[in-house]
Amino acid sequence: MPIKTLNLDLGERSYPIYIGTSLLSRVDLLSPYLGDGRLVVVSNETVAPLYLEKVMTVLAQYQPLSIVLPDGERYKTLEVLDRVFTALLNEHCDRRTTLAALGGGVIGDMTGFAAACYQRGVPYVQMPTTLLAQVDSSVGGKTGVNHPLGKNMIGAFYQPRCVIIDTDTLATLPDRELSAGVAEVIKYGLIRDREFFDWLENNMDQLLHRESQALSFAIYRSCRNKAEIVSADEKEAGVRALLNLGHTFGHAIETGMGYGEWLHGEAVAAGIAIAAQLSRQMGWLDTADVERIETLLKRARLPVRAPAAMDTSRFLELMAVDKKAQAGRLRLVLLKAVGEATVTGDFPPALLIETLQRCRDKS
Amino acid sequence: MPIKTLNLDLGERSYPIYIGTSLLSRVDLLSPYLGDGRLVVVSNETVAPLYLEKVMTVLAQYQPLSIVLPDGERYKTLEVLDRVFTALLNEHCDRRTTLAALGGGVIGDMTGFAAACYQRGVPYVQMPTTLLAQVDSSVGGKTGVNHPLGKNMIGAFYQPRCVIIDTDTLATLPDRELSAGVAEVIKYGLIRDREFFDWLENNMDQLLHRESQALSFAIYRSCRNKAEIVSADEKEAGVRALLNLGHTFGHAIETGMGYGEWLHGEAVAAGIAIAAQLSRQMGWLDTADVERIETLLKRARLPVRAPAAMDTSRFLELMAVDKKAQAGRLRLVLLKAVGEATVTGDFPPALLIETLQRCRDKS
Repeated sequence: MPIKTLNLDLGERSYPIYIGTSLLSRVDLLSPYLGDGRLVVVSNETVAPLYLEKVMTVLAQYQPLSIVLPDGERYKTLEVLDRVFTALLNEHCDRRTTLAALGGGVIGDMTGFAAACYQRGVPYVQMPTTLLAQVDSSVGGKTGVNHPLGKNMIGAFYQPRCVIIDTDTLATLPDRELSAGVAEVIKYGLIRDREFFDWLENNMDQLLHRESQALSFAIYRSCRNKAEIVSADEKEAGVRALLNLGHTFGHAIETGMGYGEWLHGEAVAAGIAIAAQLSRQMGWLDTADVERIETLLKRARLPVRAPAAMDTSRFLELMAVDKKAQAGRLRLVLLKAVGEATVTGDFPPALLIETLQRCRDKS
Repeated sequence: MPIKTLNLDLGERSYPIYIGTSLLSRVDLLSPYLGDGRLVVVSNETVAPLYLEKVMTVLAQYQPLSIVLPDGERYKTLEVLDRVFTALLNEHCDRRTTLAALGGGVIGDMTGFAAACYQRGVPYVQMPTTLLAQVDSSVGGKTGVNHPLGKNMIGAFYQPRCVIIDTDTLATLPDRELSAGVAEVIKYGLIRDREFFDWLENNMDQLLHRESQALSFAIYRSCRNKAEIVSADEKEAGVRALLNLGHTFGHAIETGMGYGEWLHGEAVAAGIAIAAQLSRQMGWLDTADVERIETLLKRARLPVRAPAAMDTSRFLELMAVDKKAQAGRLRLVLLKAVGEATVTGDFPPALLIETLQRCRDKS
């Protein structure tokens, strides 16, 4: 298949997103974005045995260094980030160093944040290897780490120089991770692309069977939606907040259950279902809409209920520090329709509480 | 005395620098820059007993919170920064929170970096209480923390909303800290303002006696020089590097001796003297120039030699990770004349080594 290319338009900081097969072998895609300093590939213990050696060989002319971090959301911390800084300093990497993130969302977020902070900012590129990273986290420049009191609470908006999405890497992705990525794909349909949502209903089986045409289309369409939104609102002053559909609830689940217990995409799926239920309580969606949404999530092998351990008071406590909270008032992304989202703080608290009670597994 | 106001011109991110007496009481200066969220004043254990209660009272209408950190360069770490994040999260501070740095350079750098990273960026203001912070570190948006392997290696360019310099706070500043600030003042004269250097030679006694007209003039002139440079080159792609005169040597001393052993300004003073000596070796300064520079530093009770413990190999090792190093090649700020600096990597290594050997105390 030919390479598909998208451009994320941010003026001087614009960058290309390449989508295709065998792209990890394409040194020509990466080389224009490498500076004249060191190249350091950051990966994790799961991805490194699969793809790191190959990437290091392809990029051998740049004599790259590599840093391998432990795998998992629970290692997305300031402490592990500091290991990256230590490794860079031990190797005397200067300001012209370029970092390359080879892995999923955790590696992308941490590598991007390390690049944002190392010597007050060095360039980086994204080479995402999970569906979730390919359709969402590698695009748009949100970087950061978690804090025990809240997810992604420490970070920066810091854009990569390019995003190289090699869809071949999805062949080694565990089913559970594939599904987690599909949650974010479904999100784009729900918030602004009803046609895509319809397509997903018709093509979910092909996606889950990893048919390459279906995967490629879903990734391209997701990245196009994301690029349009980020281009319009890089720092999330407005429309970008719609991308957080399901995330305020989802972050509470991830933090409340302990990072890594639920995958990010799984928590977002449950969060989307909760947002859909609350949207129905608001009279915006009807029962059939909610059922369509929950059915599609379930077909993707995703949860549509919060875990029993997340009682309402824990939810409310954890959501109060979410970044979407403004001046002490909780704001949520809800659905006006399938394909149309809105950010609102204007919902009766009693409805939220009722929805949270309804939307969790009974233990 | 009337308030002096400078503007740091950075387009949309421009901000005012106010210089005057009793400014910590002037809520009107601060209020336009406060958002509609929480206000959190960050200070340290030395400054808090002197000024924090007063500031909290003046700002009472904003119901500010306060965070008090331990005092000193050795606490300018990721670990202590994390305490700020924990405090903000425990108080459920959201994205609309504004941080205010009340203290010296360490507090300003850490508060600015905390603001850069907290929830991917919240506003902050600078209220510097040391001469060094007032003439240098509070202006220009360099924020960050130290790493055991290098000073200021983790950070961000992140501009404050305003800088409020209350010169009354210098009344409580220890003599040693006053001198450390004067090192950065002398720097401005050396790199680009010969007239100011002449003025300093004529007014050093008044400065050290804390005569308010002299202090006020020196602060204003320093900030004006800094604002002009930062406005021309915010991210240090070019001319801003001149502000690092003495800093590559100085950072090596600070890191090598252990953070806090030498004050930053003391290390910079020794670094300036080393840079002057090397500039003489290069044939750019004559012996009389070097003597003028060393004499002025000594009159300010500042060191002009590196400590005996800093042997040449230790210097070279520590300087290799300095941010001014580019692509493995060390670049230094040297003097073409008193009042004119240049950045160069074009010096014979043997001259550097000879200068480092000459410019340290013999133990």
